[in-house]
Amino acid sequence: METRPYVPWDLMNSFMIDVFKAYGVPEEDAAICADVLLESDRRGIESHGCNRFKPIYLDRIDNGTLLPVTKIDILKETPTTLVMDANNGMGMVASYRMMEKLIEKAKTYGMAGGAICNSTHYGIAGYWTTMAEKAGMIGISGTNARPSVAPTWGVEPMMGTNPLTFTMPTDEDFPFNFDCATSIVQNGKIEFYERSGKETPPGLVVTKDGGTMTDSGRILKTMRAGNCALLSIGGLGEATGGYKGYGFTTIVEILSAALTGGPFMKELSGKNPDGTNRMYRLGHFFFVINPEFFMGLDTFKHTTGEILRGLRASEKAPGADRIYTAGEKEWDAWQERKDKGVPVGETIQKELIALRDRFGLDYRFPFE
Amino acid sequence: METRPYVPWDLMNSFMIDVFKAYGVPEEDAAICADVLLESDRRGIESHGCNRFKPIYLDRIDNGTLLPVTKIDILKETPTTLVMDANNGMGMVASYRMMEKLIEKAKTYGMAGGAICNSTHYGIAGYWTTMAEKAGMIGISGTNARPSVAPTWGVEPMMGTNPLTFTMPTDEDFPFNFDCATSIVQNGKIEFYERSGKETPPGLVVTKDGGTMTDSGRILKTMRAGNCALLSIGGLGEATGGYKGYGFTTIVEILSAALTGGPFMKELSGKNPDGTNRMYRLGHFFFVINPEFFMGLDTFKHTTGEILRGLRASEKAPGADRIYTAGEKEWDAWQERKDKGVPVGETIQKELIALRDRFGLDYRFPFE
Repeated sequence: METRPYVPWDLMNSFMIDVFKAYGVPEEDAAICADVLLESDRRGIESHGCNRFKPIYLDRIDNGTLLPVTKIDILKETPTTLVMDANNGMGMVASYRMMEKLIEKAKTYGMAGGAICNSTHYGIAGYWTTMAEKAGMIGISGTNARPSVAPTWGVEPMMGTNPLTFTMPTDEDFPFNFDCATSIVQNGKIEFYERSGKETPPGLVVTKDGGTMTDSGRILKTMRAGNCALLSIGGLGEATGGYKGYGFTTIVEILSAALTGGPFMKELSGKNPDGTNRMYRLGHFFFVINPEFFMGLDTFKHTTGEILRGLRASEKAPGADRIYTAGEKEWDAWQERKDKGVPVGETIQKELIALRDRFGLDYRFPFE
Repeated sequence: METRPYVPWDLMNSFMIDVFKAYGVPEEDAAICADVLLESDRRGIESHGCNRFKPIYLDRIDNGTLLPVTKIDILKETPTTLVMDANNGMGMVASYRMMEKLIEKAKTYGMAGGAICNSTHYGIAGYWTTMAEKAGMIGISGTNARPSVAPTWGVEPMMGTNPLTFTMPTDEDFPFNFDCATSIVQNGKIEFYERSGKETPPGLVVTKDGGTMTDSGRILKTMRAGNCALLSIGGLGEATGGYKGYGFTTIVEILSAALTGGPFMKELSGKNPDGTNRMYRLGHFFFVINPEFFMGLDTFKHTTGEILRGLRASEKAPGADRIYTAGEKEWDAWQERKDKGVPVGETIQKELIALRDRFGLDYRFPFE
């Protein structure tokens, strides 16, 4: 049962736009950024929604590691490809401009690909792939991130949690939307286990001695000290397929940097050797595939829908209520929230009020 | 220590070509098929090499589920895309023709994509992606297969072991080559555990009661009875990321069928309801990305090489000899085997002699 108060979508959206503007973000760009963050909340992915508004975006504008005005340089453009330098501006704005162009290219050529360097956090990867899906196309995207994941048989945080995301059109009310990190979990999940007083399952992290750890509080402490790393899907070692997840994380690390020649791994720590902040300089990649250039969009949608319906209708484990397909939980979250708004907990409530008061904005929230 | 006798590469290659020809495969096609199978042995991937020559290819030609002459219909072609119907011919031949064309398209347009329906086993997915890599491009490929993998919270074998494969050029002696099933293991691995008298790690298979099983012999027996399914990377349930691996397996199932409108899941069992054989009608997909249409091949190769060298040089777990990157073990296998040939065990030795005698071919093997 949701106990947090809801804030209507429209109210939250215009508030976020006004605050972004107050931080120097141009109005059109502010609207893009607010929509990306709220889309995460619409899908129930609260780790990337309005809870990140202040710490990951506004605070970074304040500390100079994120520029509110996004100056985009086109480094290379061909009929099917596009390479951009985001010059440490808003990653969400650069990604939006990228996807607009790639969708146009894929309308004409059937396939398109792009990459961005010197960028910043681009929100949920699934926002970009869904732009393609809304245009009747397959979207694929990924991004590198601060190093936190160790390779198989390694113990050092080398790569980001590196999402590899696919969204595909279906004949259902919602798309197939696979949007997740190639690590088993992100930090936030271990924080959740700690808050819930739960142990972290074994094999999610690796310690310096090559073993794993399950005490959630201790994991967080050890991780903060840099003595513990996350693991990719498949977990510790090779027997349960850890090297496969490690492979996927590496693929994202490569595509995020090598298509632009941008930085990677340890260079993405956001910190100078002396501990001061520096630009994140993230890289993202995007591919768009137009089914009309294969056997047609209707064929694609119908086949995909049949596969997903077949999976959901297959035999369940005793006690399992439901077999989900990717994107279904997000769709369910939207059904629950669409008429109510975005639920905000106490921390966010305080942040919103402080922002309003700081900029003297004329808003009143339902939780006041 | 390898105890099996080696057969020189050239001898094995011409023998396989002659046998394929004796089975009615045209000479040019026979050369493609022999090379795909031997490439697997060159890489040390013995599950897909000459051990499959007879059971997966020749026996299927014999029983009528694989046609030796591959009649390819082009269902759709655009400057960047290609859709083929392989008409139940040799999947390896159709895939070779596909990749030749996609590489040409990507030379001109930077991006290319293709899909094949009504195909048969296409060998190691990494052969096709390596064709792109040898042309200085990124290759991506996948294929559906006989249903053996259950979705998260399900117990029924619904999808194939569905590889999702990426090969990328590097500035090293060998490429980044990530070529593996999206299931944790394939049947063959559990057979290996049984032969070695080892337990199967928990979480690799799901039984009808929703639990897992570790007795390797019992797993194989239960699986043959259809009462046990493989699991995707991440394993059982959601806590260790099982839904992520399940998502990757589903992506491959979708792309292998929906781009052509071909069959999927239970339709790929290779059996009619009365238990008689039927055509496999597999689907494969292929994407080629040309780094020259981004920031150039040299930039791509150098950045990728730097990432891979960085991973290998990172801090190892105590007791771990080496951190590998994808494709490195395959390269090591080739270094060990290139001057010796392909090691063949007793079963294959008998198969080779029987084939030679059946067709009265003029070969003498080192193990005779």
